[in-house]
Amino acid sequence: MKSKFNLDFVKRLTLKQKAELVTGHHSWYTYEIKNKGIPKVEVSDGPSGLRKSISNQTEGINQSVQAICFPSSALTACSFDTRMLFKLGQQLGIASRVENVDVLLGPGINIKRSPLSGRNFEFFSEDPYLSGELGSAYVNGVQNKGVGVSVKHFAANNRENQRFSNSSNIDERALREIYLLGFEKVVKEANPATIMCSYNKINGTLNSQNPRLLTQILRNEWGYQGLVMSDWGAVDNKPASLNAGLDLEMPGKGEYSAQLVMNAIQNGTLSESKLDLAVLHVLKLVEKYHLDAKTISSYDKGTQHEFAKKAAEDSIVLLKNDHQTLPIHKDEKIAIIGKLAEKPRYQGSGSSHVNSYQVTTPLEAAKNSGYKIQYAAGYSLDRDQTDNHLVQQAINLAKTNDRVIVFAGFPESYESEGFDKTSMALPNVQNDLIKKLAQVNHNITVVLQNGSAVEMPWRNDVSAILETYLAGEAVGDATWDILTDKVNPSGKLAETFPIRLEDNPTYGTFDVSHREENYYEGIFVGYRYYDLKHMKVNYPFGHGLSYTTFDYSKLQINQDGNRVTVDFDIKNTGNVRGKDVAQIYVSNEASSIPLPEKELKAFTKVELQPGETKHLSIKLNRRSFAWYDVQLPGWRVDNGNYTIKVGRSSRDIQLEQSVHIHLGIKPSQKITENTYVSEILNRSDLKPAIKEAGIKSQLDSIGADAAVLANIPLRATNMINIKPEQMKKFIELANK
Amino acid sequence: MKSKFNLDFVKRLTLKQKAELVTGHHSWYTYEIKNKGIPKVEVSDGPSGLRKSISNQTEGINQSVQAICFPSSALTACSFDTRMLFKLGQQLGIASRVENVDVLLGPGINIKRSPLSGRNFEFFSEDPYLSGELGSAYVNGVQNKGVGVSVKHFAANNRENQRFSNSSNIDERALREIYLLGFEKVVKEANPATIMCSYNKINGTLNSQNPRLLTQILRNEWGYQGLVMSDWGAVDNKPASLNAGLDLEMPGKGEYSAQLVMNAIQNGTLSESKLDLAVLHVLKLVEKYHLDAKTISSYDKGTQHEFAKKAAEDSIVLLKNDHQTLPIHKDEKIAIIGKLAEKPRYQGSGSSHVNSYQVTTPLEAAKNSGYKIQYAAGYSLDRDQTDNHLVQQAINLAKTNDRVIVFAGFPESYESEGFDKTSMALPNVQNDLIKKLAQVNHNITVVLQNGSAVEMPWRNDVSAILETYLAGEAVGDATWDILTDKVNPSGKLAETFPIRLEDNPTYGTFDVSHREENYYEGIFVGYRYYDLKHMKVNYPFGHGLSYTTFDYSKLQINQDGNRVTVDFDIKNTGNVRGKDVAQIYVSNEASSIPLPEKELKAFTKVELQPGETKHLSIKLNRRSFAWYDVQLPGWRVDNGNYTIKVGRSSRDIQLEQSVHIHLGIKPSQKITENTYVSEILNRSDLKPAIKEAGIKSQLDSIGADAAVLANIPLRATNMINIKPEQMKKFIELANK
Repeated sequence: MKSKFNLDFVKRLTLKQKAELVTGHHSWYTYEIKNKGIPKVEVSDGPSGLRKSISNQTEGINQSVQAICFPSSALTACSFDTRMLFKLGQQLGIASRVENVDVLLGPGINIKRSPLSGRNFEFFSEDPYLSGELGSAYVNGVQNKGVGVSVKHFAANNRENQRFSNSSNIDERALREIYLLGFEKVVKEANPATIMCSYNKINGTLNSQNPRLLTQILRNEWGYQGLVMSDWGAVDNKPASLNAGLDLEMPGKGEYSAQLVMNAIQNGTLSESKLDLAVLHVLKLVEKYHLDAKTISSYDKGTQHEFAKKAAEDSIVLLKNDHQTLPIHKDEKIAIIGKLAEKPRYQGSGSSHVNSYQVTTPLEAAKNSGYKIQYAAGYSLDRDQTDNHLVQQAINLAKTNDRVIVFAGFPESYESEGFDKTSMALPNVQNDLIKKLAQVNHNITVVLQNGSAVEMPWRNDVSAILETYLAGEAVGDATWDILTDKVNPSGKLAETFPIRLEDNPTYGTFDVSHREENYYEGIFVGYRYYDLKHMKVNYPFGHGLSYTTFDYSKLQINQDGNRVTVDFDIKNTGNVRGKDVAQIYVSNEASSIPLPEKELKAFTKVELQPGETKHLSIKLNRRSFAWYDVQLPGWRVDNGNYTIKVGRSSRDIQLEQSVHIHLGIKPSQKITENTYVSEILNRSDLKPAIKEAGIKSQLDSIGADAAVLANIPLRATNMINIKPEQMKKFIELANK
Repeated sequence: MKSKFNLDFVKRLTLKQKAELVTGHHSWYTYEIKNKGIPKVEVSDGPSGLRKSISNQTEGINQSVQAICFPSSALTACSFDTRMLFKLGQQLGIASRVENVDVLLGPGINIKRSPLSGRNFEFFSEDPYLSGELGSAYVNGVQNKGVGVSVKHFAANNRENQRFSNSSNIDERALREIYLLGFEKVVKEANPATIMCSYNKINGTLNSQNPRLLTQILRNEWGYQGLVMSDWGAVDNKPASLNAGLDLEMPGKGEYSAQLVMNAIQNGTLSESKLDLAVLHVLKLVEKYHLDAKTISSYDKGTQHEFAKKAAEDSIVLLKNDHQTLPIHKDEKIAIIGKLAEKPRYQGSGSSHVNSYQVTTPLEAAKNSGYKIQYAAGYSLDRDQTDNHLVQQAINLAKTNDRVIVFAGFPESYESEGFDKTSMALPNVQNDLIKKLAQVNHNITVVLQNGSAVEMPWRNDVSAILETYLAGEAVGDATWDILTDKVNPSGKLAETFPIRLEDNPTYGTFDVSHREENYYEGIFVGYRYYDLKHMKVNYPFGHGLSYTTFDYSKLQINQDGNRVTVDFDIKNTGNVRGKDVAQIYVSNEASSIPLPEKELKAFTKVELQPGETKHLSIKLNRRSFAWYDVQLPGWRVDNGNYTIKVGRSSRDIQLEQSVHIHLGIKPSQKITENTYVSEILNRSDLKPAIKEAGIKSQLDSIGADAAVLANIPLRATNMINIKPEQMKKFIELANK
């Protein structure tokens, strides 16, 4: 069927109508133009649950319709499960469609560069490949239900402080390999309806006015066909934004915004063809995700709540489990301690905040389970000050019970969209409490509720640590099911937990300047940094324990054309059913550039019955071996040796094999005036040319001082008495 | 007296003559043009001693006239003594003048960025202020005797591998504050006759073809009037070099070089005025440092040898001295162990290598001193393989003597100009030997001979550590005098000794790419990095012990116009005469930029008799508080609080005081559309404007969501229902 909306249609609109269409109608709609048959599109916040505002104004960000609060992306990422993310997307799509929301504003796929970034809980990972894979699955799921997404925040929006004006200063290779890669993957693999342009600058240019980012890279290089909208308030100079490739300003400023566009057209600072293109992008969105979208009239909130529980259970990470202290046995007497058990933190603050349908707390879940439970709050969430009465109650329970499950985490006031943290430490009152409990009971399990990595001063004093992040409204059941073995944990960390904040590469420079954030570490973000520096960490990227055990074997690697196939077996060698995530890392030994020790290039999650073995066959492609060469410019593969590593975490490599890859560039053997003498001395094929050019005696003479004199280029060989004419003759002969 | 050489004179030369004058005559001379009365200038290697070649060709770099081998710069820097460096320069100037050398190629003032850089031994420090101060003193000393210098290697030449083509990729602030600062100081404080342009590229442009570096910064910004010569072989495209501001290519390629210049003039790729300027710079050098230089007919090598000893004694650093194990007492039985005691490494390899006048070894010095000495080699320097016989001899001596003095260090093959190291470890055979000796004798002193920082796996097993670097030909006497208390050590480390190589910010990325070196750490070089990351180190920058003790007191800080005066007292509270280096660091708390915890901004060395107190008064100036603002661009001082710290090392701060500096810029209070709402809420003076513009109720409404909604700029306040017109009115009112 031919589209109604095309450039001819656009050209028949008045300038005022066009100016309105590239401007949001207040906060959550585009303009409706009835006499042209253009309905409005409705957008809504909510990567981890629909946050459909009950008003078109922004009167407080927490007033929205009731919806299921799914786990935040910080947790769902730990599933390492693209099928689960796809289903999550579908659930969100259904809820949106039912509520007549056409575009859901998510997912957020920014990189977790610093543990302090206030919005980390909304993002997937420190790894761009993982972010891109999970983001693509999520987008495909939402859009599968006829609802568009807005992949955010494009790009390099890695801190909250001064986020409207701060410049992310990043070298081009890090920008491409780390900060843009996830977006590139989602654009190419999921064709998102919209991309949300972030607030910040990159290298001094506001993203919303950056033609290189919004047009050259996004559209010309990646082939993006959808719409680019601004993050809320990200537009500064509206004509400049339209010129750069930003289509839709959100929210609009009404008549004021439209007038700016009309003035710019009239005074020539904005070309009408640019405006028309932006309008067309809006109309295509209207058509595909509003006019053509199938209606869904209702959905079952109970079913979605169950899915929220399942999503959390697939993702929660068992960090530590000494002497198989978990799961809990039914006959044990259990002290549950910590206010967060009673009043869990299960979602983030800011634009992702959901008006939850039904929250189950861990304490309720425990009480309802029939286990022998006693509870003490231990601390208050209101302020970080020890309440001796609460502490004493907790200690008393710890003394009189077989084991302690202590709930700890960041109170809501500690992390949110809109500002960054200044510490990776939990409130002192919680850290102190854990230490004290460990003195009176040797079976302590810590359950964490937090948006991003925390310090663990009590790490060696406790038996088990369960990381639940912000687990959504089913936090209680999901947590209790894992603690009690109804569910075998299978989550893997999507970020490193460093020992100290100081260990993070951004330490000391993050957030210190109001106007600039220097990405000093370049590509060495997350595990790429800790690996490079041979640093100990509390828990590495990809880490997560299970109640069963797995055995990896029979690694085989085959190259066939542009494909490299990684084959291996995994066996469940324990006594219970379980899932493991096989992580494929590639170490590049071929390229003469700064390189991470290894990088994640594929992963797969597999479920196994006790004793069962599955054969896995994972494909890598040319891009799995590529790096971004700024001088090409482009993605480059060097022929040479690579090691393929199959790990259960980034620091638990089970299988590895070196392989010679020949998908790429053969280094040039051409001799120039800038070729080093040492290279010439290493090549026996050049001996005839050396002799014929008459430079043998000079080259032979440098023997004793080779360290200095062989490390000069041919153009400087007058220093070893080779005449310029001889040097030129040699180059001519050598390249024959 | 009016100069014979001026532009008119230059214009009367033939093109060929001009082309020759901007080209070295082989390795060590400029062209002589007899019929124009232009003599040749002779240049010679040798920052730590004259290396006047016995040939004009470069037939092996170790054939030179006999001269005094002074300590290398790695050691003299530890003197922290500008007067000593000035005198050292004078000695070198005298030797040069006597040998008819007009220009001495030194000092090298590059920054020690990585402990692995092969040429670190030739450079002063990881700190640019210290490098610049010492470099200026040295240059003033040499030129005081009518000999010119060549300050090298301009600039950012911080590795040896691929040094002819590698690009040092540095952000502008680091370039200015770290890598150029020393050169800027020397240019402004010592007016060096020549600057030597280094081999490398900066951010992709070959230094020898970089007009920004060689003309815009060096001449236009800093006012440099002297000559720029190339490092040996650093010129690639000769016309491009002349265009960029490089005057003299070294060494020349004879007729070939001249022809390139003539062709370029004829085809217009080089303007004759550029060539004339380069020729004029050469002629000015000829005039000042050859024609006008006073002759010195002879010098006393014995006196210079004594000065070499004094220079080493002023510089050697006592790193550790538990329980005052040093100095050695006359009645002790001493085992001297280590081949380096017998065959000391006292100078570096490459262009700084001197044909020494008279070497005294530590073993000879010890034997001649009348102490009870037994000696065992312990290891061989030829290869890193344990010789059990040598080890057993050493152990036997260690068992039967009161104490052990073990000499350790890098053999010559480990570090040199021309290539970089790959490890910071001493040969295994030496580390193993020290461990073994420590098992049989509890009084071990390690004496180190090395060009740059080393790892110390035995650090906790020994009682004392003496760092002598490459101490020059008087190494033996200087070392022994300090060990035995004839001299009280007063040297202070001019570089940090990290615990592990991994701790250095360049670890993992240094030298990995042939074409690029990314300065990921920016300004955080040396102690600036270790301080930022709160890292433990083996020995911090500025550290050095004495046989006496000092007390610091009575800090007073005064501001007077552009000067800040730091007054304090130092008292020698011990029993022997001694010198200490008072180090003045400044911590900037005023600027909102990435900042080191503190930076060295002044230092002074003071000698005190037992019980004596001296009052010191040190001046700081505007620059002591400045940072390089790329956006100005220029050096900027922010008004606000700074802490002035007086330390005996960078981690031994004795006195400190906070001071409000008002030499700089007052932050603008101007309100724009990009001003954040949070700033407005913080300013009570804006209350009337808020009220008048009618935006009070909207601002009041954000209370509950302030974390998100106060951190938006005015241009985005439509999100809190402020109309654009109201926002504009408020800005107008607020700026009134």
